[in-house]
Amino acid sequence: MILIGERINAGFDPVAQALKDRNAENIRDLARKQEEAGADYLDINMGAISKDPEDMVWLVKTVQEAVDIGISIDSQKPEIVEPALQVCENDSLINSTTAVEEKLDGLVPLAVDYDASIIGVTSGEGGAPQDVNGRLEHAATIFSRATGAGIPPGNLFLDPVAMPLKFMQEQASNLLKSIHQISNISDPPPHISLGISNISSDATERSLINRTFLVMAMAVGLDAAICDVTDPKLVESVATAEMILNNEIYSDSFVETYRMA
Amino acid sequence: MILIGERINAGFDPVAQALKDRNAENIRDLARKQEEAGADYLDINMGAISKDPEDMVWLVKTVQEAVDIGISIDSQKPEIVEPALQVCENDSLINSTTAVEEKLDGLVPLAVDYDASIIGVTSGEGGAPQDVNGRLEHAATIFSRATGAGIPPGNLFLDPVAMPLKFMQEQASNLLKSIHQISNISDPPPHISLGISNISSDATERSLINRTFLVMAMAVGLDAAICDVTDPKLVESVATAEMILNNEIYSDSFVETYRMA
Repeated sequence: MILIGERINAGFDPVAQALKDRNAENIRDLARKQEEAGADYLDINMGAISKDPEDMVWLVKTVQEAVDIGISIDSQKPEIVEPALQVCENDSLINSTTAVEEKLDGLVPLAVDYDASIIGVTSGEGGAPQDVNGRLEHAATIFSRATGAGIPPGNLFLDPVAMPLKFMQEQASNLLKSIHQISNISDPPPHISLGISNISSDATERSLINRTFLVMAMAVGLDAAICDVTDPKLVESVATAEMILNNEIYSDSFVETYRMA
Repeated sequence: MILIGERINAGFDPVAQALKDRNAENIRDLARKQEEAGADYLDINMGAISKDPEDMVWLVKTVQEAVDIGISIDSQKPEIVEPALQVCENDSLINSTTAVEEKLDGLVPLAVDYDASIIGVTSGEGGAPQDVNGRLEHAATIFSRATGAGIPPGNLFLDPVAMPLKFMQEQASNLLKSIHQISNISDPPPHISLGISNISSDATERSLINRTFLVMAMAVGLDAAICDVTDPKLVESVATAEMILNNEIYSDSFVETYRMA
């Protein structure tokens, strides 16, 4: 399972403040905490508070002072993504393109030029479809454009878009079906990723919903997630599911072993 | 989700003692506790301590003094199952036949005669196969014999056999595939059930493994489980999975609502 830590997001007040103050130690601390919790990548998101490529560059540089794991550059704007890729020395992941022509044109070549991985969310001109077929159609468009440009399936993450259960409850079962079908799109398959926390937006019991949904999605083929890796219950659920799927060997200390791997 | 409470099992010392002493109140107490925790059926298992049909009859009578939910008669011996069915006034479930000819001959007619549901475990003359195809073959044999005898698919539970992760780790992913395939065996489909606790036999973190495996199995089509309903973490995971699958409506108190339903 590829875990992408979501906490360096200026939508959270302490991150917004640290970005404003150029408080590198607070950012590095958040990076180290997520790495220790089991993150494979750290997502960096400026939220609504900045559109300045220099802010993203500073965040990327600051994070890689603290950790060696991958960096997920959370922007759909090539003018923000490219400068960040230029300074990124760790593995890099562009988060994200959609199936919209203009986004593909702007972002797929950057993934190729910088040997970056890229997330493609199943959203198009009309937004993100709620049905299985709509999701698959956009997944196929992105898959074909990305692999056609030379991105290997192992560097491509297709994201069929998690929507809030509280407001669109029936979407979750469509989402599980979509994951299962996308996992058969090619051999070897692309990664399949989701922004897990969206599923519990504005709900009670967010941690319970997130971890339950995450392991259900893993059962049908999800192998990557943008999520709160600092939630120990979520990570122990992932460790257990990985052991059930035979991706990690059983030992009596399987949860601890997974965290330290 | 159909939850079958596993606690009235003479493999547990207090139950063995209560059976020996004819301590009805202890049995009734265990029945009520499981009903309150959310059980739809209560499994009654005499373990290795008795082969006396009168003991099973006493247990069934005692349980139905306390609760109105279904009773699962846990025996493969017609000479134990039939007397229990004769006294059972609640919904009844025979647990279980296998695909072995002699078992089918002895138990399927009882399910028909007493309008009982029946569990068929995917085990044959050579034991319980570990691969997907072996499981499916036995499932098809049982399905065909049971429905051919007039048992409606809704009264049939196919059980593809949970095996301990600690000793047969690779079986769990076969089991998930088997569930998914059995769910397509007919329309309407039979129920698909598992003895969940087997998956964590002799492992650490049994509750974590049980509840994680259970919701992963629900994601691929499991709709019944023999399990420890007195484990609140297991039931809250089931409640969450049912809500994710859109089988229960979201409300801010969805866990409590599920328990009380």
